[in-house]
Amino acid sequence: MSTYAEKYFPEEPSGPKVVTETIPGPKGKAAIKSLSEVFDTRCTFFITDYSKSIGNYIVDADGNVLLDAYCQVASIGMGYNNPNLIKVAKSDKMVRAIVDRPALGNFAGVDYEEMQRDVIKYAPKGQKYVWNGLSGADANELALKAVFFNYQSTKRGFDNPFTPEEEVSVMQNLPPGNPELAVLSFTRAFHGRLFATASLTRSKPLHKMDMPAFHWPTAEFPGYKYPLEGNEEVNKKEDERCLALVEDRFKNWGSPIAAVIVEPIQSEGGDNHADAAFFQGLRDITLKYGAKLIIDEVQTGCGGTGIMWDHERYNITPPPDLVTFSKKMQSSGYFFHDPKLVPNLPYRQFNTWCGDPKNILMSGAIMKEINEKDLLPALRETGLYFYSKLEELQKEFPGFIRNLRGKGKGCFMAFDVPSPEKRAEFLAKMRINGVNLGDCGEVGVRLRPGLVFGKKHVDIFIPIARKVIASL
Amino acid sequence: MSTYAEKYFPEEPSGPKVVTETIPGPKGKAAIKSLSEVFDTRCTFFITDYSKSIGNYIVDADGNVLLDAYCQVASIGMGYNNPNLIKVAKSDKMVRAIVDRPALGNFAGVDYEEMQRDVIKYAPKGQKYVWNGLSGADANELALKAVFFNYQSTKRGFDNPFTPEEEVSVMQNLPPGNPELAVLSFTRAFHGRLFATASLTRSKPLHKMDMPAFHWPTAEFPGYKYPLEGNEEVNKKEDERCLALVEDRFKNWGSPIAAVIVEPIQSEGGDNHADAAFFQGLRDITLKYGAKLIIDEVQTGCGGTGIMWDHERYNITPPPDLVTFSKKMQSSGYFFHDPKLVPNLPYRQFNTWCGDPKNILMSGAIMKEINEKDLLPALRETGLYFYSKLEELQKEFPGFIRNLRGKGKGCFMAFDVPSPEKRAEFLAKMRINGVNLGDCGEVGVRLRPGLVFGKKHVDIFIPIARKVIASL
Repeated sequence: MSTYAEKYFPEEPSGPKVVTETIPGPKGKAAIKSLSEVFDTRCTFFITDYSKSIGNYIVDADGNVLLDAYCQVASIGMGYNNPNLIKVAKSDKMVRAIVDRPALGNFAGVDYEEMQRDVIKYAPKGQKYVWNGLSGADANELALKAVFFNYQSTKRGFDNPFTPEEEVSVMQNLPPGNPELAVLSFTRAFHGRLFATASLTRSKPLHKMDMPAFHWPTAEFPGYKYPLEGNEEVNKKEDERCLALVEDRFKNWGSPIAAVIVEPIQSEGGDNHADAAFFQGLRDITLKYGAKLIIDEVQTGCGGTGIMWDHERYNITPPPDLVTFSKKMQSSGYFFHDPKLVPNLPYRQFNTWCGDPKNILMSGAIMKEINEKDLLPALRETGLYFYSKLEELQKEFPGFIRNLRGKGKGCFMAFDVPSPEKRAEFLAKMRINGVNLGDCGEVGVRLRPGLVFGKKHVDIFIPIARKVIASL
Repeated sequence: MSTYAEKYFPEEPSGPKVVTETIPGPKGKAAIKSLSEVFDTRCTFFITDYSKSIGNYIVDADGNVLLDAYCQVASIGMGYNNPNLIKVAKSDKMVRAIVDRPALGNFAGVDYEEMQRDVIKYAPKGQKYVWNGLSGADANELALKAVFFNYQSTKRGFDNPFTPEEEVSVMQNLPPGNPELAVLSFTRAFHGRLFATASLTRSKPLHKMDMPAFHWPTAEFPGYKYPLEGNEEVNKKEDERCLALVEDRFKNWGSPIAAVIVEPIQSEGGDNHADAAFFQGLRDITLKYGAKLIIDEVQTGCGGTGIMWDHERYNITPPPDLVTFSKKMQSSGYFFHDPKLVPNLPYRQFNTWCGDPKNILMSGAIMKEINEKDLLPALRETGLYFYSKLEELQKEFPGFIRNLRGKGKGCFMAFDVPSPEKRAEFLAKMRINGVNLGDCGEVGVRLRPGLVFGKKHVDIFIPIARKVIASL
């Protein structure tokens, strides 16, 4: 039986091919120099030739062909130039969404309902509705707005009008119109870099330095001992310690905490995992104190961990109040199930575009493709195989590969290396040997291959990693 | 000589055609009812059939054909199903931008530089660079970030590292890492509805109620007497009064004011205009106090007022520090000219996508089309004609049409009516008589036809407006 990649990317290369001495090579360097006149290229790894990239392989301006295990910061799940998505991109619906981009709140098109239903069809268990945004950060800020509207409307009486005092004070950015409400996020969390989301983000100083911030509380996210097997007792204590900190914030924070926001796996912050007991504990605390639970699936959502929505593996009961998404979905927004999270008045959760139908159309098409072609069982199998091979590598190089994590979570894996400097060296050498990878946290190496990554790609990845590590 | 609409929309109807007794009619009502199961339809005017809409005419699900003088809240400038934009939408570049959406900061494509240059080519006078975002609110928040980074970096020394105290405090959302800096915006301003932008927005309570806000200062935006001719003296005094308030805030606000943000014409807030003396006065004050001047051209930009960038008519000297854009551009972001507004370190102004190449590609194509087809001189002529006809109507119905404004600013016009109730009635009757229109401020009627609106469309609009007003 052929894999998805074999079937739909018949021209995918048999392996990486590096043709220049450095990456970027001469053409890439010249292109970066020229691009730097009009764009900040200090973060540019290389210039990509998307017309030549295919499936799991990304091709740069010099013709270097790299196996991609980073995939646009976990945002391309279906492989480059996926032929089934190209069909959607060329459809009349897409052309219209491009040239006649609607203000969806006022003038939704006749085909918009179908687009929304295609997305909701694959919503997390328990979620009935969706609201669209434009990026992961935007999705989280819109979710916060829904929470704050709900919190204050509940307090005021859902059918009661704003008070005159609220109407006056809000125009001066003062309470009671603009209340002092807080949202709790975790140390090492990443939820975006707009102003409210930067207030939630706690990954590193650079992500939020110099921005005015809301004074909101934080609690520690569990830091587990690896391997998980054999460390059950100490990790259980860690859950309890962190949950106690959360409860302490609810008891002692100066202003009401309207919500807790958490990633199923803290990604940017270092691929930090937690378990069912922790997430259920959070759910219980939020219920106890009348707060909402927002699960940020921006990086984990849409299949990357081997299931559509990573938090579903924990069977959180009742389900989270809001689940945000972006990245692999191409579109962004939040799912929810409580109709009271639709604001009590029109034009509260509103803006000109209310989402981008081009991206919403892609979301539906991507989720349909994942589910109809049954990509996730194969990805889970590939993930277990990949993990076992990395485990072998960890045994070979115990001083280099540490805290391997992500077992049973598709190919959503990471490990630590001895230092940031060693990591930079490792990633650069992996690239010049044909593998594109990313980092996370202080010393993490982040694996984010697409959903079309197969065992044969693992068998290409592992020998290169072995060779590179041995050379360090 | 044929107009743009005649040339490129040969199938544009000769006038509106309303076939149902209400808008929405039976099909539209059924579609809204069904859509409301998955989307908040309380703001839906009607369900649109974009496949049948063409040029200046929008067609609804019931087959009603309306002359569109609102154009997706001023966001569709080039007419529905513009054939020259359809070509771009079907291009290979676009297809790749859809299926291989890049993380532009890390992996820009080989064609990205050309896209950026196509946009910068039509930047406001004095602006050399662009940074991309995803909506008008996003553009403004990114501009604020650029300002805050610049402000603190300048204070710290551009090449100096963050201090240990800053690195510790920022992880707790406290100064000095998260400083108490402010941005001044004006009464009746609208800059978006994310959290920092909602703090800037002062249009109405509903736009920001119940959201935690930054305590930032506001000053009054001029409220001119109309007609401008004959009221020069009183309006000059109004400028001086408002500028004195701005200066007072700089002198007396508790925290430093890092920037002033202002719209060339306050749109959502009521189509409030100001003049060269006011804008130059703002520039002078910001220079005096070391603050940046951000011009929000989200609604005015890209040709709507008869010139590409409305603030250019005031010849502000030196030019504003940042100019934000969105809507008609399809893409969003800010233009700037000071290289020090590029943050001193990489990964500060950064996110996964760094803009959406589909929309950036459209921006360039739209601006090229406007300029190469020389749309703006025709639009200016149409605008003057439209204004003169509305002036006649104002003379006929002085009790209904008040404060007609926007002369010489393309078709970017508005007038006031006696009450919000009368306005609702007027807009509904205009629609059932074949014209789609919007509102602004408390009692404003907002005209936002596209850039392809011609005299023949004015000649359709005016008799319908006359008939409707006479019937009220």
